[in-house]
Amino acid sequence: MDAISVIRTKRDRGELTPEQIDWVIDAYTRGEVADEQMSALAMAILLNGMNRTEIARWTAAMIASGERMNFDALSRPTTDKHSTGGVGDKITLPLAPLVAACGAAVPQLSGRGLGHTGGTLDKLESIPGWRAHLSNEEMLTVLDTTGAVICAAGDGLAPADKKLYALRDVTGTVEAIPLIASSIMSKKIAEGTGALVLDVKVGSGAFMKTIEDARELASTMVALGTDSGVRTVALLTDMSTPLGLTAGNALEVRESVEVLAGGGPQDVIDLTLALAREMLDAAGLKDADPEKALSDGSAMDVWRRMISAQGGDPDATLPTAREQHVVTAPASGVLTRLDAYDVGVAAWRLGAGRARKEDPVQAGAGIELHAKPGDTVTAGQPLMTLHTDTPEKFDYALKALPEAYGIAPAGTSFSALPVVRERIA
Amino acid sequence: MDAISVIRTKRDRGELTPEQIDWVIDAYTRGEVADEQMSALAMAILLNGMNRTEIARWTAAMIASGERMNFDALSRPTTDKHSTGGVGDKITLPLAPLVAACGAAVPQLSGRGLGHTGGTLDKLESIPGWRAHLSNEEMLTVLDTTGAVICAAGDGLAPADKKLYALRDVTGTVEAIPLIASSIMSKKIAEGTGALVLDVKVGSGAFMKTIEDARELASTMVALGTDSGVRTVALLTDMSTPLGLTAGNALEVRESVEVLAGGGPQDVIDLTLALAREMLDAAGLKDADPEKALSDGSAMDVWRRMISAQGGDPDATLPTAREQHVVTAPASGVLTRLDAYDVGVAAWRLGAGRARKEDPVQAGAGIELHAKPGDTVTAGQPLMTLHTDTPEKFDYALKALPEAYGIAPAGTSFSALPVVRERIA
Repeated sequence: MDAISVIRTKRDRGELTPEQIDWVIDAYTRGEVADEQMSALAMAILLNGMNRTEIARWTAAMIASGERMNFDALSRPTTDKHSTGGVGDKITLPLAPLVAACGAAVPQLSGRGLGHTGGTLDKLESIPGWRAHLSNEEMLTVLDTTGAVICAAGDGLAPADKKLYALRDVTGTVEAIPLIASSIMSKKIAEGTGALVLDVKVGSGAFMKTIEDARELASTMVALGTDSGVRTVALLTDMSTPLGLTAGNALEVRESVEVLAGGGPQDVIDLTLALAREMLDAAGLKDADPEKALSDGSAMDVWRRMISAQGGDPDATLPTAREQHVVTAPASGVLTRLDAYDVGVAAWRLGAGRARKEDPVQAGAGIELHAKPGDTVTAGQPLMTLHTDTPEKFDYALKALPEAYGIAPAGTSFSALPVVRERIA
Repeated sequence: MDAISVIRTKRDRGELTPEQIDWVIDAYTRGEVADEQMSALAMAILLNGMNRTEIARWTAAMIASGERMNFDALSRPTTDKHSTGGVGDKITLPLAPLVAACGAAVPQLSGRGLGHTGGTLDKLESIPGWRAHLSNEEMLTVLDTTGAVICAAGDGLAPADKKLYALRDVTGTVEAIPLIASSIMSKKIAEGTGALVLDVKVGSGAFMKTIEDARELASTMVALGTDSGVRTVALLTDMSTPLGLTAGNALEVRESVEVLAGGGPQDVIDLTLALAREMLDAAGLKDADPEKALSDGSAMDVWRRMISAQGGDPDATLPTAREQHVVTAPASGVLTRLDAYDVGVAAWRLGAGRARKEDPVQAGAGIELHAKPGDTVTAGQPLMTLHTDTPEKFDYALKALPEAYGIAPAGTSFSALPVVRERIA
């Protein structure tokens, strides 16, 4: 077995054998297959594809590269959610405590933001004292005592995926559905959850720009999960416009707490409830009532306990950015478009995101939206407020925004896409 | 300008801009673009192609990465030959002195063998004392005084190609026509020859297995040469069966000397003369008579002077292998097939070739053929003799051979492919 013959098989549109896949993942993890060989293979996979059998074996080999967690000792059924990432996607924050309040255990291993999409850990780290990094024992304790935990994945889970993801990031091979699917599912299956709901974003602010690509990714992942004994469901959800009225770390924590308090923007509430119902259903808790858990304060109680258990102060004042800049409507009419990608790039440029893994993020930076598509606006009214600690970045952020929104004459009819576009199980 | 955007352009089937090509070749040579990025780009080029404009710019950028030689000070016109490599392809050895004997200067920068094809420098190094590595000044002196020089290319010519070739070799990206064409032509154009004849091999023992691929490679290279002011012609020549009756280093030197002495196998004589006529014609020496230079001993005189000028003794006894093994015909009839690839692999396994660049080769190892396709054979007669210093390799070499030849009943009609199949100018 050697790297060149594996690369040639895929280059020449052949099917990789189980032995080739097991060998190449293991040898890459050990450093026997070099980065330049794996990147050539990744490009061949991106351009020539892998079939379902190959993807399943690839995923299994990445799981086998590390440890597997086990939640069998918990008294509650486990259920988890994964989002492919979007702008203003703070759903994990209200969702995990809400589902825990309804009787499930939610082991939410999350990541950081890269590029224009935000990261759950970055958002929670704006809460003074909160710690993302827990040992496996600490994680189990928080999960067992509060019902939910949101933390960084340990280094022991799917190390092959960690190495491969970093390589894909610098070699133009991120956008390969077989590699995206196996990357996500290897971590989630190794994590040991019993049920999994996938939130596959579609639209300008998502990795999947078309419904067809999103469908292919979702059905690939659902098959991988199901074949591995994880009850898996996917929702394809809209990411043509940002979720809620905020994009940024502390700004999104604030909005999430509003939702847990019974308020917040309708699209965030709707998607949180839709995902909660799927997670509870997949966990076998068919009689749970997430709407009640949101309105009676029990989800908020879990949130407070979960944040405290990880060292955070749920009553602390959240950081705010030092400077603000208001963007006003250039005309009166109906806001017909507010582009998720453009808003995400602007928030990133203001300091909410990072260009490289090692960069810090600003807790208070980001964008507050004062109108959403379908709203009537008047010339001169505030459309959005930009927040940053580094006001010299306003110009750079504003350059991302001129094409970000569209205003049509008053009376123009407008119908928004539904938040949940399709369900794949 | 960054590596990922260049990779994405080609990955998404776009055309690379001149600026992108110049930047990526220069940045790769300087180490700013990493090996894993260049290998992903090479795979994208292999699978998605480059058009003629891109290939020309890519070649120019590789030439610009190093020095260019200049033969304007010579009194004779320069003309060179490049072969894409085959089994038993010793043609450079009689050809360079023959063309020099007819009045041209032949600056033949050559390479070593890798895999099943032999290398000109490895062959000549079996002559006691002969040196492949010359300084630029030494090379010019040998060329000026003898009319021909065969030596290793200096490190200063197209360093980008050297680095990229080594990378392609380990990443399954050798077989890309745009990269093969630009690799060959960047070195030949930087070398500064005025005329160039390309011997593009076609068949099992060649890199190009089909006439269509060989045609595409040849016409790509002819266009690159012509556009750079080098008079360039290509012959597509047969490599379905080995050239001549020997494959191996000292064995091929011996056969080349036979040709220079007016004997030798007909196919070697025919191809040597065909290439000599093209080289002389491209150099403007239309009245030269290579057949006469071969028969009257003047080509042999240049050979002896050229070998001596590089430290070799043209009268020295050539090394022979310590052990021989004879393969006999299993049946009587007509030999209809003798596969170049299989014979090349067997010779390589006997020690004539190397698996890795740093491996040594055995001067005496290789295969002598006692029959060629079209010959009548009798059961039990010798078909070939295997030579090696390491007899434990006989079994390994014999494993490559059972499918190497075919014998049809006596009287079966057989017509061989012509040595020169097509000419592209």
